[in-house]
Amino acid sequence: MSTKRIPHRIYLTEDQLPTQYYNLRADMKELPDPMLNPGTGQPVVPEDLYPVFAQELAKQELADRTRHFDIPDEVMDIYRIYRPSPLCRAYNLEKALDTPAKIYYKFEGNNTSGSHKLNSAIPQAYYAKMEGLTGLTTETGAGQWGTAMAEACAYFGLDLTVYMVKVSFNQKPFRKAIMETFGAKVFASPSDTTNAGRTILAADPDNSGSLGVAISEALEVAVTTEGYRYVLGSVLNQVLLHQSVIGLESEKALELYDEYPDIIIGCAGGGSNLGGLIAPFMRDKIQGTHDPRIIAIEPASCPSFTRGKYAYDFCDTGKMTPLAKMYTLGSGFKPSANHAGGLRYHGMSPILSKLYHDGYMEARSVEQTSVFEAAKMFAKLETILPAPESAHAIRGAVDEALKCKETGEEKTILFGLTGTGYFDMTAYQASNDGTMSDYVPTDEDLQPGFDSLPNIG
Amino acid sequence: MSTKRIPHRIYLTEDQLPTQYYNLRADMKELPDPMLNPGTGQPVVPEDLYPVFAQELAKQELADRTRHFDIPDEVMDIYRIYRPSPLCRAYNLEKALDTPAKIYYKFEGNNTSGSHKLNSAIPQAYYAKMEGLTGLTTETGAGQWGTAMAEACAYFGLDLTVYMVKVSFNQKPFRKAIMETFGAKVFASPSDTTNAGRTILAADPDNSGSLGVAISEALEVAVTTEGYRYVLGSVLNQVLLHQSVIGLESEKALELYDEYPDIIIGCAGGGSNLGGLIAPFMRDKIQGTHDPRIIAIEPASCPSFTRGKYAYDFCDTGKMTPLAKMYTLGSGFKPSANHAGGLRYHGMSPILSKLYHDGYMEARSVEQTSVFEAAKMFAKLETILPAPESAHAIRGAVDEALKCKETGEEKTILFGLTGTGYFDMTAYQASNDGTMSDYVPTDEDLQPGFDSLPNIG
Repeated sequence: MSTKRIPHRIYLTEDQLPTQYYNLRADMKELPDPMLNPGTGQPVVPEDLYPVFAQELAKQELADRTRHFDIPDEVMDIYRIYRPSPLCRAYNLEKALDTPAKIYYKFEGNNTSGSHKLNSAIPQAYYAKMEGLTGLTTETGAGQWGTAMAEACAYFGLDLTVYMVKVSFNQKPFRKAIMETFGAKVFASPSDTTNAGRTILAADPDNSGSLGVAISEALEVAVTTEGYRYVLGSVLNQVLLHQSVIGLESEKALELYDEYPDIIIGCAGGGSNLGGLIAPFMRDKIQGTHDPRIIAIEPASCPSFTRGKYAYDFCDTGKMTPLAKMYTLGSGFKPSANHAGGLRYHGMSPILSKLYHDGYMEARSVEQTSVFEAAKMFAKLETILPAPESAHAIRGAVDEALKCKETGEEKTILFGLTGTGYFDMTAYQASNDGTMSDYVPTDEDLQPGFDSLPNIG
Repeated sequence: MSTKRIPHRIYLTEDQLPTQYYNLRADMKELPDPMLNPGTGQPVVPEDLYPVFAQELAKQELADRTRHFDIPDEVMDIYRIYRPSPLCRAYNLEKALDTPAKIYYKFEGNNTSGSHKLNSAIPQAYYAKMEGLTGLTTETGAGQWGTAMAEACAYFGLDLTVYMVKVSFNQKPFRKAIMETFGAKVFASPSDTTNAGRTILAADPDNSGSLGVAISEALEVAVTTEGYRYVLGSVLNQVLLHQSVIGLESEKALELYDEYPDIIIGCAGGGSNLGGLIAPFMRDKIQGTHDPRIIAIEPASCPSFTRGKYAYDFCDTGKMTPLAKMYTLGSGFKPSANHAGGLRYHGMSPILSKLYHDGYMEARSVEQTSVFEAAKMFAKLETILPAPESAHAIRGAVDEALKCKETGEEKTILFGLTGTGYFDMTAYQASNDGTMSDYVPTDEDLQPGFDSLPNIG
């Protein structure tokens, strides 16, 4: 181990930034099962995806064995504004926990989207612009992805229409304002602007929305509007590819201090942050050069990994997307409105699903009151108010550090602090005044979601 | 000039951080006029201030000729979590403006207070804790200072009571929530919890508050509560002393690239950011080794520098404080509720007032619609949504860069980007939907404030 003093914040220099995305699929022993066309049951080819995604992104989505993709110069021009993100040593947290563990976190909140989402928003907007498209559509849950896309589209001069899950839209009015400040159009989903939305509202006028529904709406607008395509902030292979910058920077920064993580922890909704953070470390694990434990932390109220089925499913509630093999609660799963913040998606990245299925990863679910307790402890010690999503990873890291205290093991823990909670104060207030509660679905609660699974694959 | 490529973000290493605060007063040719006891008309001595401030802070307040103060290790422990703040080269803004000017900004928003205010909150809480105090009181306008103090007090284990200007309290409910998350008690000011507040409410039940009123309330609680003292986030000499870290880091980072600013621009409310940013550069100007232009940008609706009087005045509306010689609109000045964000204080740092009076600085006032236009342009190009206060400096920098375009001069501009606007979305929304208006007080509007000035000094 190095004797160099490890600073509170490790910043790479601009010339140490990764210049290529790393595609973890290229090093997987077995690839995820292919995306299927629901009509034919056949594997999807890039051309199938061109009506939906910019062509380069469609290619990235399906390029299973291409190990690296160059990051375009125009994308680097923005990355250099907010990257490298700091790799932080949580000295104060370690001290407060009285743990022998060394705790690091990769903090992705120092940009206006408030999270890591900007890492994928920029290339997605860039390729759309390069291919002559004029606009994009997307969905957003907690709002970070919508904000990130609004920033990226403002920068490249593209229109953007965002469908925001209604329960979040109402809880976070300022998310709409910030997206509009960057020029985006924002609708609460389900909305009356799409067939998908109108169908759902007709059956259930009080439907509070879900990512699955919002995806259906955004997709419908994209494929029916000339010059538009659709973008998604998680789940997809291309998103994990772009988010590999998180892991690559973390690896490099740790290397400078001769460190390597024994445990890597990330929150998991669709898998965008977790997949990016772990990419180079999972490669090492697959190749047998290192053997870190890799742990996904998900909300007990939306437990895709821990209680979902590994099955082919639609990525949206309207069943418009190709089928992906993943851990899923079923596209008909309705997340509880009780649950604060993001991580409300029914499915999970097919890459992460495969790795979990094959035993390379662990997963654990946690309840939100304990998540917010960890968040508030962290804020007081490390002066960063975390996003509720990110706080799931804090909960996981604190629990592992406390185990080290019991066993006396000096483990090195790395977790992803994906973003800040400045737009989540309603949830913090509920935690402060004791009105926040937990919700763990019963098996009966989960059954309607499983009933919605297609009989394929 | 260096041929080294200048990165988008310059981060000092941890061992390049300043370890001492720099006291600009020590190098001023003429000192600011002394603070006076309003009862006796005599200069204040440290003992006079002990009932109000922690003793070390009282000493710093009056230590005119002590050039440096060590930054305590316990303070450095937190600084290292969020400092160095990045010195940023605004390549995208330069390109969009098509200016030969080089534009740098020192970005202080990457911490949960959302601004530079944390730099002074930490030492103020630290000294209180060291001296065995149990609690602090303060006021906050836009909310950054209150949040910063809440963070600092949570860290050091002190109680905190915050009086928040009522108009901001109502516009920004989430500021209260974030301060409460860190354990602070927050009241809208004027409140019925103090004599000062009750007196104002009796005369004017709809009074929307001002920093001057909130200071009176906080001060009253501090001096009447055992073990409590009062803290202030701007105006005071001690605050400018702590904020010198902004300027010292900027100077060091520019030095690494053989750069020196021709023009330095900061927003000015009470002067905390501006005074900190310019400290080492003003020293050079006073000593004649460099001759940068130094420009304060203030709101046209609260024009202390540009339309105030240079006179002895109270720092609060309740006339409880010592008298300070400063540019002031009078402690009875009522800022317009039309004005968004901070920079609503009637007075101005005595240090900056003296420097302005002696011709070392310029000042300019700007109207808020043009400020928000600059803010939104900046956000789209540089991906940071600025606080409305910070956007005043952006407006000033953009105007200077455009002058360079006209003249063809390749000037180096440095401005202070004090913070982020995530809690200011109501104001951004007003700018987005065109309902924001400007307000420039007439001479008659200013007269009641001037009538409130004491006949002293």
